[in-house]
Amino acid sequence: MKDRLWKEVADARKRLEGVVHVTPTFTSSSVDQIAKSSVSFKAENLQRTGSFKFRGAYSALSALTEDERKKGVITHSSGNHGQALALAAKMLNERAFVVMPENAPAVKREAVAAYGAMVIACAPTQSAREEKTREIIEQTSAVFIDSHDDLRVIAGQATATVELIEASGPFDILLAPVGGGGLIAGTAVAASHLLDGARVIGCEPAGADDAYRSLTSGQRITDFTPRTIADGLRTPLGKLNFEIMQQMVDSIVLVSEEEIVQAMRFVWERMKLIIEPSSAVAVAPLLNGTIGGNGECIGVILSGGNVDLDGFFSLLAKTSGSASQA
Amino acid sequence: MKDRLWKEVADARKRLEGVVHVTPTFTSSSVDQIAKSSVSFKAENLQRTGSFKFRGAYSALSALTEDERKKGVITHSSGNHGQALALAAKMLNERAFVVMPENAPAVKREAVAAYGAMVIACAPTQSAREEKTREIIEQTSAVFIDSHDDLRVIAGQATATVELIEASGPFDILLAPVGGGGLIAGTAVAASHLLDGARVIGCEPAGADDAYRSLTSGQRITDFTPRTIADGLRTPLGKLNFEIMQQMVDSIVLVSEEEIVQAMRFVWERMKLIIEPSSAVAVAPLLNGTIGGNGECIGVILSGGNVDLDGFFSLLAKTSGSASQA
Repeated sequence: MKDRLWKEVADARKRLEGVVHVTPTFTSSSVDQIAKSSVSFKAENLQRTGSFKFRGAYSALSALTEDERKKGVITHSSGNHGQALALAAKMLNERAFVVMPENAPAVKREAVAAYGAMVIACAPTQSAREEKTREIIEQTSAVFIDSHDDLRVIAGQATATVELIEASGPFDILLAPVGGGGLIAGTAVAASHLLDGARVIGCEPAGADDAYRSLTSGQRITDFTPRTIADGLRTPLGKLNFEIMQQMVDSIVLVSEEEIVQAMRFVWERMKLIIEPSSAVAVAPLLNGTIGGNGECIGVILSGGNVDLDGFFSLLAKTSGSASQA
Repeated sequence: MKDRLWKEVADARKRLEGVVHVTPTFTSSSVDQIAKSSVSFKAENLQRTGSFKFRGAYSALSALTEDERKKGVITHSSGNHGQALALAAKMLNERAFVVMPENAPAVKREAVAAYGAMVIACAPTQSAREEKTREIIEQTSAVFIDSHDDLRVIAGQATATVELIEASGPFDILLAPVGGGGLIAGTAVAASHLLDGARVIGCEPAGADDAYRSLTSGQRITDFTPRTIADGLRTPLGKLNFEIMQQMVDSIVLVSEEEIVQAMRFVWERMKLIIEPSSAVAVAPLLNGTIGGNGECIGVILSGGNVDLDGFFSLLAKTSGSASQA
């Protein structure tokens, strides 16, 4: 299986060449000091559409047959995968449908629409999403592209880790957040091929610990109610993702909501990078002493930077009226 | 004068080698599209202490005589220069005093103190600052280091532009924000030596347009009341800075408060970089159509990224309590 998975990654990489941004790697002396380690951050918040999701979406869409391409593609998403699919489809000249819950922030709906995809609203439940998606597929024959439970998607996400290892490796430990499991599975596949004995550790909010419980029990948990600010990590673990993780991921660490917010603030203030809460989930274990402490070389995927800034900027607009000499 | 100024820059660069971060350069296809130009951003928000000010402070402190070093250094600052001086002094093993207005944000006072400088509070007026500074100098003989009106400081700031030109030049236009004039003077000195016929354009808030009015009238204006959110640009133009600008700066463009906030939001959302309002002042002219439009190669100094995020994160803490599946 390992060789077949790596072949998928190598193929995905060819399809993504010249299309994805080879995002930069950042270091932070404050993080290194706190974590007593040497940490490299892969800034996928600087990827097209603001998250690593573009890699997987483009990887999947560029692998479709001519016949499939003609039918167009469809997904349901409240966030980054929808934007990623919409841009990838636009670049490949494919029709795209994105089913989005009606309570998704207007800014996200607009971003998807701006890439030329057709946005279809649905009720904000998993079953409503799936039903609406089936309905559109019946009408259009569009090809469904899952956000994570798809080998071409996983292979695309893996390319972020391949680049990170090439730029700053080797590593003793790799950290990535876990939602549906596309990123962590890709990270594990890349690490198992390119690194010798590195530990791949998934990072999950304690309020959405389905991957932790699934790996511990050996049974994939799909029925749970996530309670976390990390909106990218509320998705249940995929089937293929779980299989890969069982074989290749060493462990899952859990972080609290407070630790997520603290880590996000740390990266904004010290590293001056906008990351979203889901990304902060993979930074928190370095700041709270769970990971590091022995001079390890650690690679971290900062998964994305799509944050709703409306609140901050309306606050700023209010206070800037009264700005004066300080 | 030109050659003597360049000599100072070359000397400053030697002193700063291996000490300052050679900050990365960023591009943005959205900015290029809007400005119909090819724009490179020098990310001095990623500089030590979060702004370009570290270059000037270290340049000045490392040029002191053995005797001066023993006396220690002093400045007054409500912001980035204070932090920069404090860190530079710590690295050079010098004593530092920073006079800060008592209404400066606690986080800034703490940052200066964390670098080991002695923080002295004063009333929040220019005259109170100067008086308190004189008082401390009388007591300690500490050497005063101005934030901008100092050739060693200007030469230090120039090194940011030297790096930018080396990494991404040549340029047709260079943009930098104007407060006391340390950065724009340094930018002009570097450009006049390294570029052939490039225009150096200062960017200033309309609510703190002392440089604009000074250059237009030929008389340096020092008595004015700034009204701008760009807290780094409320400082009156320095004497030496004005002289250099008269000879080497092509023009000043003014931007409104609304344009500053819009440009800041644009960089946060699209480029995922935390910049402070002062930096946004040099981005706004690219977004509002004042600069660009003809495929010019443009270099922009993003001067710093020190923003008070208390408001955003207390908002987030409030809403994250109610986070659930979306």
